[in-house]
Amino acid sequence: MTQDLHPVISLRLFTDRKCFGPGVAALLHGVEARRSLRAAAQAMGMAYSKAWRILHEAEEQLGFKLLDSTAGGRHGGGAVLTPEGTRFLAAYDAWAAAVRAEAERLFAAQLGPWAGPDVHPTGMQSDKTEE
Amino acid sequence: MTQDLHPVISLRLFTDRKCFGPGVAALLHGVEARRSLRAAAQAMGMAYSKAWRILHEAEEQLGFKLLDSTAGGRHGGGAVLTPEGTRFLAAYDAWAAAVRAEAERLFAAQLGPWAGPDVHPTGMQSDKTEE
Repeated sequence: MTQDLHPVISLRLFTDRKCFGPGVAALLHGVEARRSLRAAAQAMGMAYSKAWRILHEAEEQLGFKLLDSTAGGRHGGGAVLTPEGTRFLAAYDAWAAAVRAEAERLFAAQLGPWAGPDVHPTGMQSDKTEE
Repeated sequence: MTQDLHPVISLRLFTDRKCFGPGVAALLHGVEARRSLRAAAQAMGMAYSKAWRILHEAEEQLGFKLLDSTAGGRHGGGAVLTPEGTRFLAAYDAWAAAVRAEAERLFAAQLGPWAGPDVHPTGMQSDKTEE
């Protein structure tokens, strides 16, 4: 293989449908940094209409607001995370980081023999499956 | 919210590109059950050409064969998992199951306050973010 085998984990939250995942999380981090949904979307190369839609859907599914508009309203002015949005984002980030760390640890335990570059499990080099 | 918030995890293995994930794993389980790649693909509603392609790409990236053709060759006849394919699939399944279990446990620890139906973290009901 051309590069070490490694896990790639995608972590999403659903209600009856998709609700919160890496896209909304990145958008919220962008709003924290830029205090504007439009600027956050632009920095991610995401259309503002999409940013507004995924944020609105997340708020609807979660049942609470993630952003508060500042002067000028959400369309014209800035935005900041609500207190509950801040707490929720921090909890999602902590969860995602912990799961990724566990996934790496378990990957080494379960799939370690296949993880090295061009390394097969010890004693299996003679398998007829090798071509 | 309309249904409890819950995590949905996707677990994939990459080298420099996508290599092995739920699709190939399901296909291999289908081959175990049906002893034919074509029948396994059909049972999943997957085009045989796609099944062949994702399997071939996984074998190329992993550096070993996952399937052995039986009478008639891979296109016409049946197929079985190679010994290393069997071991690898079992290791992937064990890894995925362990990560999912950890993700659920960590979800309860980190995001538990948001997990119930229409339940907000205690003491946060008065947030102005509630609308």
